[in-house]
Amino acid sequence: MNILVINCGSSSLKYQLIDMNGEKVIAKGLVERIGIEGSRIKHETTGKDEHVIEQPMKDHKDALGLVMSSLTDKEYGAIASLDEIGAVGHRVVHGGEKFAESVLIDDGVMKGIEDNVELAPLHNPPNIMGIEACEKLLPNAKQVAVFDTAFHQTMSPKRYVYAIPYEYYDKYKIRRYGFHGTSHKYLTDRYAEISGKKVEDVNIITCHLGNGSSITAVKRGKSKDTTMGFTPLEGLVMGTRCGEIDPAIVTFLMEKENLSAEEVSNILNKDSGVLGISGVSSDFRDIEDAAKEGNVRAQLALDIFELTARKFIASYMTSYENIEDIDAIVFTAGLGENAIDTRKHIIDKLSVFGLKIDEERNNIRGKERVISADDSSVKIMVIPTNEELMIARDTLNIVK
Amino acid sequence: MNILVINCGSSSLKYQLIDMNGEKVIAKGLVERIGIEGSRIKHETTGKDEHVIEQPMKDHKDALGLVMSSLTDKEYGAIASLDEIGAVGHRVVHGGEKFAESVLIDDGVMKGIEDNVELAPLHNPPNIMGIEACEKLLPNAKQVAVFDTAFHQTMSPKRYVYAIPYEYYDKYKIRRYGFHGTSHKYLTDRYAEISGKKVEDVNIITCHLGNGSSITAVKRGKSKDTTMGFTPLEGLVMGTRCGEIDPAIVTFLMEKENLSAEEVSNILNKDSGVLGISGVSSDFRDIEDAAKEGNVRAQLALDIFELTARKFIASYMTSYENIEDIDAIVFTAGLGENAIDTRKHIIDKLSVFGLKIDEERNNIRGKERVISADDSSVKIMVIPTNEELMIARDTLNIVK
Repeated sequence: MNILVINCGSSSLKYQLIDMNGEKVIAKGLVERIGIEGSRIKHETTGKDEHVIEQPMKDHKDALGLVMSSLTDKEYGAIASLDEIGAVGHRVVHGGEKFAESVLIDDGVMKGIEDNVELAPLHNPPNIMGIEACEKLLPNAKQVAVFDTAFHQTMSPKRYVYAIPYEYYDKYKIRRYGFHGTSHKYLTDRYAEISGKKVEDVNIITCHLGNGSSITAVKRGKSKDTTMGFTPLEGLVMGTRCGEIDPAIVTFLMEKENLSAEEVSNILNKDSGVLGISGVSSDFRDIEDAAKEGNVRAQLALDIFELTARKFIASYMTSYENIEDIDAIVFTAGLGENAIDTRKHIIDKLSVFGLKIDEERNNIRGKERVISADDSSVKIMVIPTNEELMIARDTLNIVK
Repeated sequence: MNILVINCGSSSLKYQLIDMNGEKVIAKGLVERIGIEGSRIKHETTGKDEHVIEQPMKDHKDALGLVMSSLTDKEYGAIASLDEIGAVGHRVVHGGEKFAESVLIDDGVMKGIEDNVELAPLHNPPNIMGIEACEKLLPNAKQVAVFDTAFHQTMSPKRYVYAIPYEYYDKYKIRRYGFHGTSHKYLTDRYAEISGKKVEDVNIITCHLGNGSSITAVKRGKSKDTTMGFTPLEGLVMGTRCGEIDPAIVTFLMEKENLSAEEVSNILNKDSGVLGISGVSSDFRDIEDAAKEGNVRAQLALDIFELTARKFIASYMTSYENIEDIDAIVFTAGLGENAIDTRKHIIDKLSVFGLKIDEERNNIRGKERVISADDSSVKIMVIPTNEELMIARDTLNIVK
């Protein structure tokens, strides 16, 4: 069966068409600037050249129309007819407390996703638009929602309740949700596959480090704790997000700079992180280059990022009784897979627990490999993530 | 020399008169409800009965006047004349970046403390009032300021810079300062004394757990990292303070509940922490009682407090290269000295690093003792804190 995986952002849309017989990507693409001047689609069928079309797209339905025509184009397409799409898997950011796993989309599910708009006002609405557009364009294909939060719904109350008046949990469902669940789950499944363990026996600390970053303690195959919280702002320092700060800074800044709640929220989400510290860029490669040229604040940004990562890894190690119980610490995503120095610096500073990197093994980008020294107390690995494949697998399991 | 130690809060004042020849407390007391109806002073000269006077006191000068007359009272006082007070040591909450150690108070210092009012609007003003009142009442005694932030001024930029736009550090000095410095420093000095090490060789993790709580990584006798930040709101869950939360919660709550910055700040400082979770009390003893009677949210509050403490201890262990480099983990303050179960639960969950408590040794309150098992990877101790003595010692060193 071919499964179409859809990931809708507010003005963008990523897709992959995956042949589940062999799990091969047969086409993929990206639509940008939906509803904005300069809309375009970049489509690539595996084995053919990339094809770019610039044309106005006023909404996600327009965008998905172009995706469908690109997929079935005689020249640069991948399939002869839309009937060859067996099912659609949608990434949905926020499942709230309602969705602890992927589900077949029906009216009740749509209502559930709409109910969570309040928790993810920027993310769930484009996800809903994508689902509605697919329903019209592919009336015969079943659709599945795969939630970014679902994997973390196994956390216990002591991990997800914040130390604020409890009524706000009752009233607004303010709690830790965690995100990147599809990635952390993929790593868990993949680790089971590699190691020959059952998923329910897997104990790993998964470090999804990219422009957005989160670390999860996986115990017996389930998410026990994760760094992102009520929103994806909490936890590690990220490209443009502040991660953990003194919450008093929020109100202090508002008063001093005369900012509204929305304005300060934008600053903390979009102007902070390594961009805010360095003043250079939100892209770690630019910051690394600047640091090498002697930019002190760029170096500081890298140091702070690495410091927060190692602190969370250390604190999540306490989720296990014995160090032998931890199967592995796993790095993934843009930085986790490619930033050789970053991985080294993080692990070097965990020497107190007997963690040790092997510099030669670590000298890789984007490959699945053990990178720890033989005498490291815990195995350390790189496993490239594949959220699209995880969504496709969940979709297949549900429609079968 | 007798040294008077003064700790002024917004409507309260604590004091101790210490004979530095032998470091004996010869009198101590507490003034409450200054400037509010029902003002009173509780004074106790060592070896005599406590003496309570209820009388209106409109400000800190009034309060200090009553302190002086109590100290010199023929019946319940401790000294014959105010001339027997050699110097006064003042606890000052915020020294900002200006004060990295205790200083003799002069006009320049007063200006420095005033410059930091912006950073501690609730704390520095009563400290200033206390100093000014003492200047008038004890014109011949030298006065010393001992800052709660000073010990932490040895932190490096990667520990104190937040991942927000750097301009806010330049403009408003928003950075991690850390508090409870006098307590963390006392423990460092005391550990050196007990162990026979030089202070500059001491590597300990100090856990000041009380109604306000902070943990510090002390490396080579200096503060390397600490959990409180720009304000005392950050870090561990406390009696009424939220500690670390997703900063997005601040703005979300403001919008949903129509709160001003000041209102939400009050909620996070005064209605949150274990009080907010449990709905029972900010006093851990009340919460423990409620938990024992089956109150689920009271138990949750205790669990969350212990979880945050162990996470920070774990993350601070990464400040050292080898586990043998860590001399001890030290508990102090109200909870740290007295909460036997809390200490046990925190350490039990650090078994992954080989930490082990000895239940019999741990069965103590308010006593200096090693509480770890002989085969614990790191020594664990209780050391009762003594901030007043630390202030008196600093004062003596400076006026000598």
